[in-house]
Amino acid sequence: MSSNRQKSLELYERAVSVIPAGVYGHTSPAATLPIAFPYYAESAEGCTFTDVDGNRYIDFMCAYGPILLGYNHPEIEAAAREEKARGGLYNHPAKVMVELAELLTERIDFADWAVFGKNGSDMTTWALQVARQHTGRKKVLTVKGAYHGVDAWTNPSPGGVIEEDRLHIHHFSWNDLSSFEQQVNRYPGEIAAVMLTPFHHPAFAANVLPGEGFFEGIQKICNANDILIILDDIRCGFRLHEAGSHKRFPIEPDMSCYCKALGNGYPISATVGKDHLQAAAGKVFLTGSYWSDAVSMATAKRCVELVAELNIPEKLNTLGKRLITGLEEAAANAGLKVTGHEPYAMPYLTFEDDPDLRKMQRFSEICANEGVIFHPHHNWFISAAHTTEAIDDAIEIASKAFQAVASEFNS
Amino acid sequence: MSSNRQKSLELYERAVSVIPAGVYGHTSPAATLPIAFPYYAESAEGCTFTDVDGNRYIDFMCAYGPILLGYNHPEIEAAAREEKARGGLYNHPAKVMVELAELLTERIDFADWAVFGKNGSDMTTWALQVARQHTGRKKVLTVKGAYHGVDAWTNPSPGGVIEEDRLHIHHFSWNDLSSFEQQVNRYPGEIAAVMLTPFHHPAFAANVLPGEGFFEGIQKICNANDILIILDDIRCGFRLHEAGSHKRFPIEPDMSCYCKALGNGYPISATVGKDHLQAAAGKVFLTGSYWSDAVSMATAKRCVELVAELNIPEKLNTLGKRLITGLEEAAANAGLKVTGHEPYAMPYLTFEDDPDLRKMQRFSEICANEGVIFHPHHNWFISAAHTTEAIDDAIEIASKAFQAVASEFNS
Repeated sequence: MSSNRQKSLELYERAVSVIPAGVYGHTSPAATLPIAFPYYAESAEGCTFTDVDGNRYIDFMCAYGPILLGYNHPEIEAAAREEKARGGLYNHPAKVMVELAELLTERIDFADWAVFGKNGSDMTTWALQVARQHTGRKKVLTVKGAYHGVDAWTNPSPGGVIEEDRLHIHHFSWNDLSSFEQQVNRYPGEIAAVMLTPFHHPAFAANVLPGEGFFEGIQKICNANDILIILDDIRCGFRLHEAGSHKRFPIEPDMSCYCKALGNGYPISATVGKDHLQAAAGKVFLTGSYWSDAVSMATAKRCVELVAELNIPEKLNTLGKRLITGLEEAAANAGLKVTGHEPYAMPYLTFEDDPDLRKMQRFSEICANEGVIFHPHHNWFISAAHTTEAIDDAIEIASKAFQAVASEFNS
Repeated sequence: MSSNRQKSLELYERAVSVIPAGVYGHTSPAATLPIAFPYYAESAEGCTFTDVDGNRYIDFMCAYGPILLGYNHPEIEAAAREEKARGGLYNHPAKVMVELAELLTERIDFADWAVFGKNGSDMTTWALQVARQHTGRKKVLTVKGAYHGVDAWTNPSPGGVIEEDRLHIHHFSWNDLSSFEQQVNRYPGEIAAVMLTPFHHPAFAANVLPGEGFFEGIQKICNANDILIILDDIRCGFRLHEAGSHKRFPIEPDMSCYCKALGNGYPISATVGKDHLQAAAGKVFLTGSYWSDAVSMATAKRCVELVAELNIPEKLNTLGKRLITGLEEAAANAGLKVTGHEPYAMPYLTFEDDPDLRKMQRFSEICANEGVIFHPHHNWFISAAHTTEAIDDAIEIASKAFQAVASEFNS
């Protein structure tokens, strides 16, 4: 097959006249690789989605992370329907809010309390404010190139941002403990917190795991300087470990933020934290028009239960490893050298001698035309609905794409 | 009946050990008037909800605004189910995103484009950034005591806020054009925008409508100084006028922000704007883990359609007027003087000689015990599911509460 994208294009033409830039959000390939991928989705099931032109794809993006158990997962949908039958949004929270907070604080070792939001940024920004409230300090350290959300203190774009938004945000380099130490020494007694992701997952680049001693060093310096550790587990949470990604890449956070996979697609985010921050947390303003939405809390509760019951992180690791080793082998057979990047549950691939990602873009484009979605600029996501058959089918399609890339780039 | 709140209390006791302060969000009466109202809801239907102890209430809060057509409205739920049956959250938006943007830009006179978020604050903060991007100016004027969301530049609490967050936010007084003019003259060429609500709806105080000439004066000064007008229509939108609240209280915004009633309880917010801001809008970062959620967009589309088809704002006005005139009469019969505050679709009531709101609090508490929810500190909300019978039942219960208040406060 070769995908027809006529209806995607027609909708896009309507969109550009009523939506700034036609589309926003994490559809970056639309801007950089026009119509290499579909623009609009029609339906999804398991590990596949169908676009508005009727093309069906084996999907390795999982809605950019939220789909952990698979699209339209029966037990998650049943939990949603059950809560929704009663109502869902009221003047007050429902019982499930307390149950979800109890479950998270039981599951996550350091967590004594939990709060909930609707976006990842709701939580990273709120956690930063809790750190400022608790310490009475203004400054926050983050890793250069790390993504912590849409808010002006951190987003990757200068649009509409003023210098005051970022005046007290300072950067250091991933896996470079001395650059962290330098910043700590530059602002003695002024740093409220460091915000970290479990591994480094910048856009347009490969995953980088925490190197030997990096997290241990940060922990030691933070402990010595009363700097709080905030783990931004928005993208990784519950994919790498059932009890939070700090159990996979050891560090002891004071707060962790979750979102994405938490409700298997239902809109919910959460921050959990240690007891000593509870007073500060109670003082930082937190609400929202839909803050008491019981349906998303019910799906999160069921999802977090299933992650442990079904041993999801191990399953994703096995599936992702099969995919990545299969792709490496297929590339080698085509005479190409590629490197698969861990963690396998959220893998990525790079081509040797591909500084501008042209090979990667061409590879992804061919795969999309043949019914498999690999993102050229962003880590991928494995779900529990990926079968070994789907992965082997994807590898087979990728094999042909590797052949084509080898022939195009060698000529 | 007199409400038992045993299960609310039991859940609250569990909550305080896993949620900072036990509860957050817009449940302020929980802090100021312990257990005068229920803490947890179990189910809702039409214009009533039932708490976890099985007490059923005629509700005049509508989940603090989102419930416009009534809890569990059949046509909204059908729209949600239809979209959900296909999937809902994908790598890409669904067709309904384009359709919703088309509908809003058609319905709202000045609107040439639309974008969507999940919280009201997503949109007020983003609109502020678009104004800064477009004008290259930093400063934004807001009304003293106005609520524009949870973000640090505007929220009503000092917790975790640093001075830089609010350095370029300046205030003026509602209905005081000279105080607005003063700020404009103080910062010539530095003000990007003014953010206004359609009427003033501070907490712990009565609604205040825009006075004669106030909006006209602001419009004139803004036009003369290239200051953008952002209408924060989050709380009022689609309750006061089918085409935006600026049609009820005339002003010509450059951007308007909607949320609350937009999806009848499904989590969605929107900003619409004029053509000349489209380029700036395309440059200000905007996304979220659930930004492409098609289910909430489908409910918003159906809800906005129904608002016009069923003439909802007029219906709410008639129902609210019946409630408020009935309450005024019942109070007078009890020898109390109260004042009902417009707009009737979002009314509020104050007692004469009640500076600390003690009478209002006692009145609300008695009504809640007897099965009617009137908030003591926040404007109320009428929904299209309120029947004249429900309103008359509420007035009857209120009559007894007025008698009790009269007797308690006169002794």
